[in-house]
Order: sequence, then C-alpha cells, then structure tokens
Amino acid sequence: MTKLVLISRDYDMSHLVPSILRAAPELDVAVHGSRDAADADVAVCWNPPEGAVAALPKLRLVHSIAAGVDNILCDPSLPRVPLCRVVDPQHARGMSEFVTWGVLHFHRQIDRVMENQRNGVWLRYDQQAPSTCSVGVMGLGEIGSRVAGDLHRLGFAVRGWARRAKDLAGIETFAGAQGLEPFLRGTDILVCLLPLTDETRAILGARTLAMLPRGAKLIHVGRGEHLVPCALLSALKEERLTGAIVDVFPNEPLPASDPFWSAPNMIVTPHMASVASSDTIGMQVAQNVRRLVNGEPLLNVIDVARGY
Amino acid sequence: MTKLVLISRDYDMSHLVPSILRAAPELDVAVHGSRDAADADVAVCWNPPEGAVAALPKLRLVHSIAAGVDNILCDPSLPRVPLCRVVDPQHARGMSEFVTWGVLHFHRQIDRVMENQRNGVWLRYDQQAPSTCSVGVMGLGEIGSRVAGDLHRLGFAVRGWARRAKDLAGIETFAGAQGLEPFLRGTDILVCLLPLTDETRAILGARTLAMLPRGAKLIHVGRGEHLVPCALLSALKEERLTGAIVDVFPNEPLPASDPFWSAPNMIVTPHMASVASSDTIGMQVAQNVRRLVNGEPLLNVIDVARGY
Repeated sequence: MTKLVLISRDYDMSHLVPSILRAAPELDVAVHGSRDAADADVAVCWNPPEGAVAALPKLRLVHSIAAGVDNILCDPSLPRVPLCRVVDPQHARGMSEFVTWGVLHFHRQIDRVMENQRNGVWLRYDQQAPSTCSVGVMGLGEIGSRVAGDLHRLGFAVRGWARRAKDLAGIETFAGAQGLEPFLRGTDILVCLLPLTDETRAILGARTLAMLPRGAKLIHVGRGEHLVPCALLSALKEERLTGAIVDVFPNEPLPASDPFWSAPNMIVTPHMASVASSDTIGMQVAQNVRRLVNGEPLLNVIDVARGY
Repeated sequence: MTKLVLISRDYDMSHLVPSILRAAPELDVAVHGSRDAADADVAVCWNPPEGAVAALPKLRLVHSIAAGVDNILCDPSLPRVPLCRVVDPQHARGMSEFVTWGVLHFHRQIDRVMENQRNGVWLRYDQQAPSTCSVGVMGLGEIGSRVAGDLHRLGFAVRGWARRAKDLAGIETFAGAQGLEPFLRGTDILVCLLPLTDETRAILGARTLAMLPRGAKLIHVGRGEHLVPCALLSALKEERLTGAIVDVFPNEPLPASDPFWSAPNMIVTPHMASVASSDTIGMQVAQNVRRLVNGEPLLNVIDVARGY
C-alpha cells in the first residue's frame, strides 16, 4: 500500500486528507512524526522543517500543495526524488481576478477617490483609456501569461518580463538581466508573479524600484522574499511609488507592529490573491501518486536546477 | 450657416467647442443667452434651464452630450424636434471597468480586508469561485448588455432585468414588474444601469432593497433619482445590505454634510464610473448636425414616449 505523509512546520494540512482520499481511497495517510510515517512513499509538503523530508528513506516523490516550491527547495538536504507542484487553472483565474481588481483600482484612481471620501471631498479625475496605462508583468509562466492576456483583453498596454524570451500575442516581452531596465522604465503598474529562485530573491529592491517611472504602482503577488521591505517603504514615503498592493511577506502573518500596515498608499492583503482549492490539490496529488505507482510520467514536475 | 448653442444650468460645456469644431469646422457656435443664439438650429444640452430650449424658434435638433437624456426630457416645454444622445463604445467600456472593479472588490472581500488593515488584522477569507456569486444587472441597453457580458466572461453567474424581455447569451433575464422580485431574490450583487424614466424613478427604494437576500451589495451607476437615499442608509445601518458603491446622486456634488459620506460599508464615488470623451461627443454631435443639414436619418434618436 502506498503511504503519504503531510509535512509542514507551520501550516495545518489536515483539511487536505479527505480530498486526497476522495480522489484515491487506496492510499494510506500517516501522521508526520509517527513511527508509521517512517516508511512513507510520498511527502506532501508546505514549508517542511529542514531535514524532515531527508529522514524518509523510502521516499519516491515530494509533492507541493501549491504552484510555488521555493519553500521546499530551500532545504539543502532535500533528497533527489521527483518534486511536483499543483497547477490549478482555477488558481490562475483567482490570481487574474485579484490582479485585475488591483489594476482597475489604480487605473481608475479609486485609491484617491477613497481617500477623498474620508475627507468628504467630491473630485472627479480625468478618465484615461486603458491603452494609455502600461502594466508590466514580471514572470510569464502559467499564471503570469494568463494574467497578462486577461489585462491585454481589457485594453491595457501590457508588457512582460521573464528569465528567457517569450512570445505572447499582443504583449511586448523583455528577457533576462539586460531586459529588466527597459521593461521597468516603461511600466506604470508593476505586477510581480515571479517564482522565488536565487536569481529573483530580493529582486524588488531599491535598484529595481528606482527604474520605475515616478508615480508608478506595485502589485506584488509573488513571494515575500522577492521584496526588500525598506526599499518599498522608502519609495512610498518619498512618493516615488504612489501606490502598492502587497499580498505576500517574508513573515506571515504580518506582525501587528509591522510598518507596512500603515505605510502611505499601501494596501496590505493577507496572502489571499489566489489559493488552490482542497479538491484540486487532492486530485492532483492523487493523480501523481497513481502515476508513480503505475510507472507513468509524472505531471507538473519541477526542474530543480532552474527552481520552478 | 448652421448654428449651435450649448445650454446648461450648471455645467460648463465650453471645453466641448474645440472638439465640435474640429469635427465640423463649418458650424457656427453661439453663446447661450446672447442675441446671436436666438436663431440657433441645434441645442446641445446638459440639464438645460426649463424653457430655455423652447425659447429657440428655429430649433431643429436637441442633442444630449451623454447617454442619458432624462435631464432634458424633464422640461415639459421641450419642443417636438428630434432629440439625440451620445452613444460612445468607450463609454460602455469605462462603465464595464468600473463595475468590474466593484464586483471584484465585493466578491474578493477587499472591503473587509481593507477594514482589517485599519485594525492591523491579518485574516484570510475563503476564496469562492465567481460562479457562486450572482450579479444582477438592472437595465440591459447598450451599456447594461456590455457590462453583463463582460461579467459573464469573468465567470460570474449573471442575471439581468429590463422593462421588456431580452435574450442575452449565458445570462438569465427577467422582465417587467412581475419579473423584479424573482430577479432580486437571487441577486448577491445588484448593479443599476437603468435609464431614468417615470417607471424607474425611485426604483431603488425600501421595497426593492428588501427583496435582495440579506448581505447583498449594491453598485449604483444609473441616475441619482433611481435611489431613495434613506432606504439605502437604513439597509446599510441594519446590515441588510453589507456594501454599496454609489456613483450618482440627486444632488451633485454630494454636499459635505450628506450622511452618505460616512455611512457604514458605503463607497461614494464622484459620478466617475464613465464619462464620454470630449472628442467623441464633438464627433457625434457634428455627425448628426451634418445629417440634419443633408436630410439624412439621424443617429441615436430618443424615443421620447419611452424616455430613452
């Protein structure tokens, strides 16, 4: 019988068990840390403690419960077994909803209108066509491409940046380190949807933010570690950036004392932009475990060297 | 030479003159109230003083500068000459942007998240598929149909209500007085895009709002006179409605003392949902004046008996 164990240092994944067993009732699920878990075949992980995965000698597969796997790859002792992630089309749609909301919030100047309401001020701003607003999407994988395409269909001038050159209909794309500055110079609203790798860690720092035009906005829905908090706080205080929606932070939940909560023109959202549903996670994990058992090719396998 | 006069009691339309003359340099534009204006052929109007249009004996056409004409039709002395409005495809797109922003704001619970931010509270709510959220669009003309279709494409469960039955792909429609209650009973987010007529005046009153499910939201982008202010204020205070975005008011600008500014879960926006551009207004007015001069059929003529 194939045995799964759920491993996380800080996230209770027990709500996923019914979904996994509904999709594959033949599986055995053991509690992490129990003697029963020692011979697990599959580890389902979110932010596992360092060494916990390596401690399973019979392991044949590590499965993430999300699109991102940086929280697993950061364990240097990770054994060399296949690592898979969840790719949920609903997840991309949820992300597109959130980013669309944020782009419209900034483009239609709802942020200023809401501030005016607090002061009882009636003031209508000029309405601009979306084609005059350049939205720059960093990260053009499954999710970034979907988001970029949806914004393009709404009429925004969309540009994209990725590690390697991409070809997306109607979207101007830039690639690699030398493409970053020209990409940012022409971006009014920057959307970060990058995976977290050694190359992208702290990419939203002072140097990057300084390349944006004065008055630009940021929508950060990548990973907390992409962002250098003090760089964003300075840019907001000095009004080089005039708006930010940040959904991800290095320490979550964001501590009550964190200056982000009350930074000027900052909207803090609680890592809510998009969450894959339990049923989708359960189904995709179950599907890959069956493929493993049957010797079939696994789905959504991570290129560990690349990091996503 | 064909002569135009711009008439409004409270809105300075002089910024439209360059756009009109760019589109039709052969026209003569006279200042309202001047002796020169007395023999005008065309009145371009927004909220004209009662009797001002009737005082022009040579008038052959009245042209609105917007989609709505209630501000012109309310003058009982209006002469029986054709009345035309501006139908701007960009206008429908702007309206769709605004309504999409509002629907996503409510559906993704950004209102609660922003309130939590003010209190330094990190709290993630369950993410619901848009298909579980029923958006009810009142008014299925050019703009309402566009908005309903765009929300349907985003995955929302869209229903529509209009005076007469309509057939829109993927959208459940209801018609007339007897269709109103079943329409409202199943609506989570109500969007008002009706024209203002004798039948729709004060339609957003206590009786209508009470037909919505408890916890419903309102996005009002029709006309100020559709809404009975005290009915909405009560519904918000008693939390029968848990959110409202209102863009139009009977008295604009909304006075600083108005209770709407600080009503619970209320977002006041300054009649900004969508404004036709000066160039579009100028072009459409000029086009209709040329058609008038050449004896060709006018575009976007109002059915005065129907009111839109």
